[in-house]
Amino acid sequence: MIVTPWEVSGKIDYEKLAREFGTEPLTPELLDRVKRHTGTLHTQLRRGIFFSHRDLNWILDEYEKGRKFALYTGRGPSGPVHIGHVVPWIFTKHLQDVFKANLFFQMTDDEKFLFRQETDFEDSHRWTYENILDIIAVGFDPKRTVIISDTKNIQHLYEIAIKAAKHMTFSTVKAVFGFQDSTNIGIIFFPAIQSVPAFLPSAVSGKTVPCLIPAAIDQDPYWRITRDVAPKLGFPKPAQIHCQFLPGLGKGGKMSASMPETAIFTTDTAEIAERKIMNAFTGGRATVEEQRKLGANPDICPVYYYEYFLFMDDDKEIEQLRRDCMSGRLLCGECKQILVRRVIPFLHEYQAKREKAKDHVDEFLAEKKGLNLPE
Amino acid sequence: MIVTPWEVSGKIDYEKLAREFGTEPLTPELLDRVKRHTGTLHTQLRRGIFFSHRDLNWILDEYEKGRKFALYTGRGPSGPVHIGHVVPWIFTKHLQDVFKANLFFQMTDDEKFLFRQETDFEDSHRWTYENILDIIAVGFDPKRTVIISDTKNIQHLYEIAIKAAKHMTFSTVKAVFGFQDSTNIGIIFFPAIQSVPAFLPSAVSGKTVPCLIPAAIDQDPYWRITRDVAPKLGFPKPAQIHCQFLPGLGKGGKMSASMPETAIFTTDTAEIAERKIMNAFTGGRATVEEQRKLGANPDICPVYYYEYFLFMDDDKEIEQLRRDCMSGRLLCGECKQILVRRVIPFLHEYQAKREKAKDHVDEFLAEKKGLNLPE
Repeated sequence: MIVTPWEVSGKIDYEKLAREFGTEPLTPELLDRVKRHTGTLHTQLRRGIFFSHRDLNWILDEYEKGRKFALYTGRGPSGPVHIGHVVPWIFTKHLQDVFKANLFFQMTDDEKFLFRQETDFEDSHRWTYENILDIIAVGFDPKRTVIISDTKNIQHLYEIAIKAAKHMTFSTVKAVFGFQDSTNIGIIFFPAIQSVPAFLPSAVSGKTVPCLIPAAIDQDPYWRITRDVAPKLGFPKPAQIHCQFLPGLGKGGKMSASMPETAIFTTDTAEIAERKIMNAFTGGRATVEEQRKLGANPDICPVYYYEYFLFMDDDKEIEQLRRDCMSGRLLCGECKQILVRRVIPFLHEYQAKREKAKDHVDEFLAEKKGLNLPE
Repeated sequence: MIVTPWEVSGKIDYEKLAREFGTEPLTPELLDRVKRHTGTLHTQLRRGIFFSHRDLNWILDEYEKGRKFALYTGRGPSGPVHIGHVVPWIFTKHLQDVFKANLFFQMTDDEKFLFRQETDFEDSHRWTYENILDIIAVGFDPKRTVIISDTKNIQHLYEIAIKAAKHMTFSTVKAVFGFQDSTNIGIIFFPAIQSVPAFLPSAVSGKTVPCLIPAAIDQDPYWRITRDVAPKLGFPKPAQIHCQFLPGLGKGGKMSASMPETAIFTTDTAEIAERKIMNAFTGGRATVEEQRKLGANPDICPVYYYEYFLFMDDDKEIEQLRRDCMSGRLLCGECKQILVRRVIPFLHEYQAKREKAKDHVDEFLAEKKGLNLPE
């Protein structure tokens, strides 16, 4: 398996990844502690989609002492948003709602530009706008959310980035990210830029504000060096909570915007979404007879993962689906139809919210509202 | 000799430096061509203080075709301004006046912060303000001049910096600047930031504007990589004209703000300036008798260089001084007194202009006026 901030491929062993990255598992005790604040446990916690963390205990310690935390997450605007992107955003919104947390949402248009072939920012800027509509459609509270685009709002980031950069050597970024002599100096500097929003809640308010980063596990290397630098700048180390990737509809691997047939985009029509689902790889057998006899394998099946991650919230229902799959009672075609019947209304609703978001973009942008969010 | 953007020491052989850097000498023919536009030849050109260039011919070609060029120079605000800094600024003002050229003046407060021990920008910001007063005191035309501070005006620089950075690898900056694995990633990225003002005249106006950089020769490595990147971004390669360093008042070496007794600051009182000059190293002999008999050596004498660079504009007068020095007619004490009598009124006048500049800062700042200068 390969898991870096730029590439995720192979069969991902999340336990091994957490061990390698040195993160902590989300234990039942810690989940119980979260539940005391949230009432019920969010599906993505119950099901281990968010599965690992750093310093979540400390975030709760501080919260219980009356010190609220801020949330920080981000998006590299290199193309359309697919359902895999939306998964952690939905969880982030849940955290915002329950903990009344401010959210700093970073659009890393500079990173995407540096890694791609384009010679102009036009594409990055277009995708930034399109992706912001998707972010707003999730339902974040505009009063408690600010969206920061690196190139458009660099004046809010650069001084802290320079301070952070002063404590990051080429040795470090080489070791953490595998940078080489042939890496361009923009990419080399970028980890400093990505560290900044973790410090902004404290920097902007002038007091120590704990920061929690909900994000997919592949971004962890950035937070490792951010955490190393934090005390040197007088900021608390950001805590993290890490999620798994929603697999693509093809055979294995993360969903990717670069393989459009394996990803359902938020802007896909009902017809396209249905076609993609009906063409999906599954954990089924070669023939109906075989499947009726031996059952199928949900653990390698993207259709099952779609249900499990997002579209079948009821635990009893998903367990029944799993049993029916494994026993051979449910065939893949039927199972795909179940998913289609849930994805289509989800997309309709999402697209309506996305359309409505066009009138509310300014309420979220750093260039319109600055960085001051309520206490 | 060591000549890098961060260190200049040893006896500097400018011819060798130009050969090593691959720059062109300012030939009599080229100076004649300049003179056709400027009427008289500026002291700093007549005396070879500006001694080398890249593409100055092309700048004049374009100018003669009716295409005006912009000027770009800069200052790293790490401490007080001394007379050595003012030398190329006076020449830059001359170019601005004669060619009605727009000037982009960059304050590299980020660079200075990245190279120094301070943990905060407070010092950089204070020196930026103080140094801006010195720059304005030179007499630049506020209508044709904009001062850009990297951290305060980063929104004008960052996108182009990222575009430039995409074409600069760690290999390149390692080879050009001697960066190592232990170099911090802010310093590694900085050459991209320093390249930007060379492109701004074109980027802001939306058409191709030639750019001429008057600066000390130690900054040349920055322009070499800036020139390599320029065509990839669709900008013309910036031309340069390089000056020598005014030596410090101690024995050998460039004047340095870090050795305050060897540098006359623009803010020095008459008493302090006089003391520094009277304590200066000279090319004199051990005894008066010996000097009367054998003469002194102006070519190693900072007092002579002060006269030659700035304080004795009349060629006949400086030649007479040189002859009197070499013949033993003029003793070092008398020669120092001649310099003192010129430096003191210069400082008085400079300090008055510097004081007046406080009311005009806003007329120069990018954050107040933007980057649009007249055609």
